[in-house]
Amino acid sequence: MRYLLTADVGGTWMRAARFPWPSPDERPPLLARARRPTPSQDPTAALIRLLQEVWPGEGEVYGIGVAAPGPLNPYRGVVLTAPNVPAWQEEPLQAKIEDALQVPVRLGNDANLAALGEAHYGAGRGHAHVLYLTLSTGVGGGVVCHGQLLLGAEGLAGELGHITVDPQGPECSCGQRGHLEALVAGPALVQAARRALADYPQSQLHNVPQLTGKAIARVAHEGDVLAQRILEEAGRYLGQALADLCHIFNPEVIILGGGVSRSGPWLWNAAHRTLEARLMRRDYRPALVPAQLGDDAGLLGAYALWLVSSAG
Amino acid sequence: MRYLLTADVGGTWMRAARFPWPSPDERPPLLARARRPTPSQDPTAALIRLLQEVWPGEGEVYGIGVAAPGPLNPYRGVVLTAPNVPAWQEEPLQAKIEDALQVPVRLGNDANLAALGEAHYGAGRGHAHVLYLTLSTGVGGGVVCHGQLLLGAEGLAGELGHITVDPQGPECSCGQRGHLEALVAGPALVQAARRALADYPQSQLHNVPQLTGKAIARVAHEGDVLAQRILEEAGRYLGQALADLCHIFNPEVIILGGGVSRSGPWLWNAAHRTLEARLMRRDYRPALVPAQLGDDAGLLGAYALWLVSSAG
Repeated sequence: MRYLLTADVGGTWMRAARFPWPSPDERPPLLARARRPTPSQDPTAALIRLLQEVWPGEGEVYGIGVAAPGPLNPYRGVVLTAPNVPAWQEEPLQAKIEDALQVPVRLGNDANLAALGEAHYGAGRGHAHVLYLTLSTGVGGGVVCHGQLLLGAEGLAGELGHITVDPQGPECSCGQRGHLEALVAGPALVQAARRALADYPQSQLHNVPQLTGKAIARVAHEGDVLAQRILEEAGRYLGQALADLCHIFNPEVIILGGGVSRSGPWLWNAAHRTLEARLMRRDYRPALVPAQLGDDAGLLGAYALWLVSSAG
Repeated sequence: MRYLLTADVGGTWMRAARFPWPSPDERPPLLARARRPTPSQDPTAALIRLLQEVWPGEGEVYGIGVAAPGPLNPYRGVVLTAPNVPAWQEEPLQAKIEDALQVPVRLGNDANLAALGEAHYGAGRGHAHVLYLTLSTGVGGGVVCHGQLLLGAEGLAGELGHITVDPQGPECSCGQRGHLEALVAGPALVQAARRALADYPQSQLHNVPQLTGKAIARVAHEGDVLAQRILEEAGRYLGQALADLCHIFNPEVIILGGGVSRSGPWLWNAAHRTLEARLMRRDYRPALVPAQLGDDAGLLGAYALWLVSSAG
């Protein structure tokens, strides 16, 4: 029996899984999984130990796919820098894992591989042209064109959170101004709330113990007008960016994942309305759907990465 | 001997060419060419006659590639609508030419095929990840990823002129607000001049017989401050959009064509400076280069379309 192992490294958790290879099933069954906190000291060694936890007792490991935070260069297998895993600076992750485990390794940006996972096994199943955005502490993205992951010259493509939505808008985590991430990620919602609180003395947001994206979503569900308006405004910015991305990519499906995308109907409906209103032609209209794979998107995307590369 | 014929249909002229097929040369030699004004009555029949003008006296025509104004669906071979060729509404161009000439036909959007031509034989030669924008009466675009043309679900991808640069900006030809085309195409420069003329009583733009993009470029070269500022402002908008496109596509080369791109250093230098200033990381930095193929880009791109499809 042959297996493929995959891993997904985040700032808080690193996960690993074992799948059969190749899998006759539409979605490969997850035969084993493991999860550990991501340590600040030597996360690469911890990742190698985690992969050993899902190593099969017998049989062959055909390959390993790793979803890692970026920016990273998938051709060279190097993480350039990772804000949530500060130990990784020009980290040759692929070579280190290959040296330790003596199995070929492929590396991909976590949001890119989540896109590939959703396109193959989740909300984009059956479609060749898929956009994926994850709205969370940041905004990550991935693009699947003609069934293939869009990588670009250095493998840095698909940074859909870093496109300008309002050139006069707030500063983004990357240092530029008015990017989508600076207007719809969790911290952007918090900043919008801070700017508006004085004008809404009745808002329940004055009383939450900590102003977070989650707290804004919760009080929006309780009927708070300010919270609902903040989510709607973020949705309009998102819809504008999605319309632009439709003119650029003409996707069949746009998949939204991440905590902010699950914050209720205010953001989602405003995004949907603005997207449709800002398309040049109705032919561009994509399906706008929620992600389906949750925390497994990266693990399954790292599996799909081997399928796609084998076919190509 | 076998040949490939190609054609490029614009609002004013339609061109056709004959090439050897396949061509051992890096850039296929143009064996014959013809050009006629695009008639308002039955342009499809005129295009078929034009292709007959470059038909070989003996030998076989392997196929025909046609660059046509869009939006069009290259999979179905249908021009959906063409503002510059009003007779074409849901025109089944591929089927009509195939019926008349009994040779397989492939159809592509003119800016998409110009991108493919430049990527294969022009300013993008040797690169797998190429963006092309033509700045003229409108702004068209095309994207080459991993050597392949990006088409999308309905073949409508690559409309790089229709991404939002300033949501409060002027209305675009497509009816939406603040698109790149509405800020940097020729008519956008004219509108910007009209808005500013009263503040620049000394400007030579008061004296030009007709206010056009070309006239603005000419008086900019003569030292006119207003004309230079208009071109610089358009360049800044262009640079912002190009930085966003780098985060999306991570191209090696961005190629600029069209009359507005040749309007002197003001637009070009401002675009270049803004592009570099607005990149998240230096790794994204592309080469920014002028188009090389001029009016032959579409004819050569329609040739490359057959090469790419044959290989795929």
